[in-house]
Amino acid sequence: MSRKKPDIQERRTVARSRLFEVEELDLEFSNGARTCFERLVSRGRGAVIIAPVQADRTILLIREYAAGTDRYELGLPKGRIEADEDILVAANREIMEEVGYAGQHLTHLGALTVAPGYMAHQTHLVLAEDLYAQQAEGDEPEAIEVVPWSLDRLGELIAREDCTEARSIAALYMVREYLDA
Amino acid sequence: MSRKKPDIQERRTVARSRLFEVEELDLEFSNGARTCFERLVSRGRGAVIIAPVQADRTILLIREYAAGTDRYELGLPKGRIEADEDILVAANREIMEEVGYAGQHLTHLGALTVAPGYMAHQTHLVLAEDLYAQQAEGDEPEAIEVVPWSLDRLGELIAREDCTEARSIAALYMVREYLDA
Repeated sequence: MSRKKPDIQERRTVARSRLFEVEELDLEFSNGARTCFERLVSRGRGAVIIAPVQADRTILLIREYAAGTDRYELGLPKGRIEADEDILVAANREIMEEVGYAGQHLTHLGALTVAPGYMAHQTHLVLAEDLYAQQAEGDEPEAIEVVPWSLDRLGELIAREDCTEARSIAALYMVREYLDA
Repeated sequence: MSRKKPDIQERRTVARSRLFEVEELDLEFSNGARTCFERLVSRGRGAVIIAPVQADRTILLIREYAAGTDRYELGLPKGRIEADEDILVAANREIMEEVGYAGQHLTHLGALTVAPGYMAHQTHLVLAEDLYAQQAEGDEPEAIEVVPWSLDRLGELIAREDCTEARSIAALYMVREYLDA
């Protein structure tokens, strides 16, 4: 079944902060139903999530304070793509800042959405291989802990209480499938 | 390494709409660094994402309009947990509304976060088995398309341009691992 998308009849900003903007949409579906949805407006060019993998299938995870859940979370490094920055360049910059490595071999494995019902935000998944030590200065308020973890122990990682982020979990399985293919 | 969490010194609401509330946090990290973060305040009791699986390992996906990305997205059914509703009850209600089935056997496989850096929001993953036809009235503006998909063709699903949501992808891999264990 291929359906005609609803028609966006009006959009208006209803709330705005330094980082977030909320917009209200008046929609008319192809069956005539009308509704009003709120969504977060995406600024910028999206984000990257990076799987830095060593030759022995060890992934370099990070453990970092997350203000949303108010706890330390274990997952893959990620960050925003800056203006005019290529996806792979952004990926390598983020792992130099957060993990202290760069990759000689970078592969774009696809894009993930976070909450397509109310956010356009896209996160590009990049596999980084042939790693070499290379630190760059980031803007983190405290040093980030790097946690090496074998891809062969993925079940044990996902069972942990501090590894819950859907993007990290999806990305780790996708990388394992890609490397095993 | 086990670190002391940053101290939240002040919180204030900086923007608010019908569905969203943005709050600003003043944080002091254990190393003395101070910073200010914005996050979305979670109201309610979180959400459920459900994997309704038939005996032959066919998963019942849905294809639904997503206002954030302004396109139809293919993924697992999900929805909010209502006040005083149990996780498994919410899961069964959502699949009755969106898929037209209920499960006799429901298993809570864990919780996923969407963006822990700026959202507390949690989505509980529920596997629904021993399905039987049972429709309930939802509040969707148009009929939802149900798309049966074999768990053995997961790679092909994730390669599709309309299957991008990290929660659905993480959940599908977690369910496959659980059923194969």
